[in-house]
Amino acid sequence: MSKIVTLQQSIMAEDERFAAAIRESNERRGLLMVNMIGSPGCGKTTILERTAQSSGLSFGVIEGDLATNRDAERLDRLGVPVVQVNTHGGCHLEANVIEKAMESLPLDSLDVLFVENVGNLVCPAEFDLGEDFKAALLSTPEGADKPLKYPYLFSSSKVVLLTKVDLLPYLPFDMKMFSEDVKKLNPEAPVIPMNGMTGEGVEEWTKLLREKIREKKAHAR
Amino acid sequence: MSKIVTLQQSIMAEDERFAAAIRESNERRGLLMVNMIGSPGCGKTTILERTAQSSGLSFGVIEGDLATNRDAERLDRLGVPVVQVNTHGGCHLEANVIEKAMESLPLDSLDVLFVENVGNLVCPAEFDLGEDFKAALLSTPEGADKPLKYPYLFSSSKVVLLTKVDLLPYLPFDMKMFSEDVKKLNPEAPVIPMNGMTGEGVEEWTKLLREKIREKKAHAR
Repeated sequence: MSKIVTLQQSIMAEDERFAAAIRESNERRGLLMVNMIGSPGCGKTTILERTAQSSGLSFGVIEGDLATNRDAERLDRLGVPVVQVNTHGGCHLEANVIEKAMESLPLDSLDVLFVENVGNLVCPAEFDLGEDFKAALLSTPEGADKPLKYPYLFSSSKVVLLTKVDLLPYLPFDMKMFSEDVKKLNPEAPVIPMNGMTGEGVEEWTKLLREKIREKKAHAR
Repeated sequence: MSKIVTLQQSIMAEDERFAAAIRESNERRGLLMVNMIGSPGCGKTTILERTAQSSGLSFGVIEGDLATNRDAERLDRLGVPVVQVNTHGGCHLEANVIEKAMESLPLDSLDVLFVENVGNLVCPAEFDLGEDFKAALLSTPEGADKPLKYPYLFSSSKVVLLTKVDLLPYLPFDMKMFSEDVKKLNPEAPVIPMNGMTGEGVEEWTKLLREKIREKKAHAR
């Protein structure tokens, strides 16, 4: 196992230079960047669709998938500027690809740039893309035991979006354990319950984004 | 990106020797080995619990998780011989770890050895553990678009277990698209609809396992 760790570290060192360059360029612009991380099908694209429909924010999206353009097409239909990155087997996005993708987006006219990472709770959490913060998404059917099983994502994110709360009546989801486990890993992170079908939670999510955007713009150089 | 691919390939070449050794040892014993791959919370452990309760098969389990022993404890409570492997950030299991874990299991008294891989549709599909076949698990809340988005897992598995079918009435799951996409990627693989709450599908899954066990034992050297 030690061999693998060494290799990952050397990739990361290489990639940290790209992440630092992205961070600096976003700071100059006052552009907020959010790295959205969650399992396949947890609702990442749906939350972005709802955000497009009701937040009033101007945002762009970099979509990461192993294959297909389906998610990018969903956002494009709503008029969101979007770049699809297909990783062809790669389990996460890396900063060098993000830098390239950003060249195709109208960055100066955006309030926020979302990266929808590859559906995976593990590897995407470990790679810095130059973002301001990570948002961890968990859908209720995945189960309340996931924060402790994927601790790095939940401890390193600034907000936890609990999606598909409309399914709670049909699921053995222990909300008390979930909330306690998230608090143990990350006492500061708010948990926002969301329902992509009705738009529940989008208002709270938008409020959090507006605060972060304001802070970012205030510090633009 | 080319750098990463090269690194993965060299790890894999190393690991293929372990996988080959495991495959040979299982062939001598006539022991079937199944690599269970699916997202976090898709129901991998629940399906193994139901299999323990009603299949009549004698099996052992190697549990892969980033952290915690929760899944191993669930199976241990049912009397299933189980070894927990914590990968501490690793997004998949590798054959060298499987070989070590197998030393702690009563292999001669088992019909089948299950590996419950780390919850992830990407990396686990790319690493050969010496198994006879992979089982791809998808839970209905993850969405019908996942086979085309994670094509390697679905094209390289011998069976697809569609879990949590009890939630279908509450979900926008396009069963026709799902079935067609799976067929496109993998015309031979049966899709077994399962419900871990009621045990639906366990009989068909057990039947498939019994066939594979019979073939394996017939070819034991």
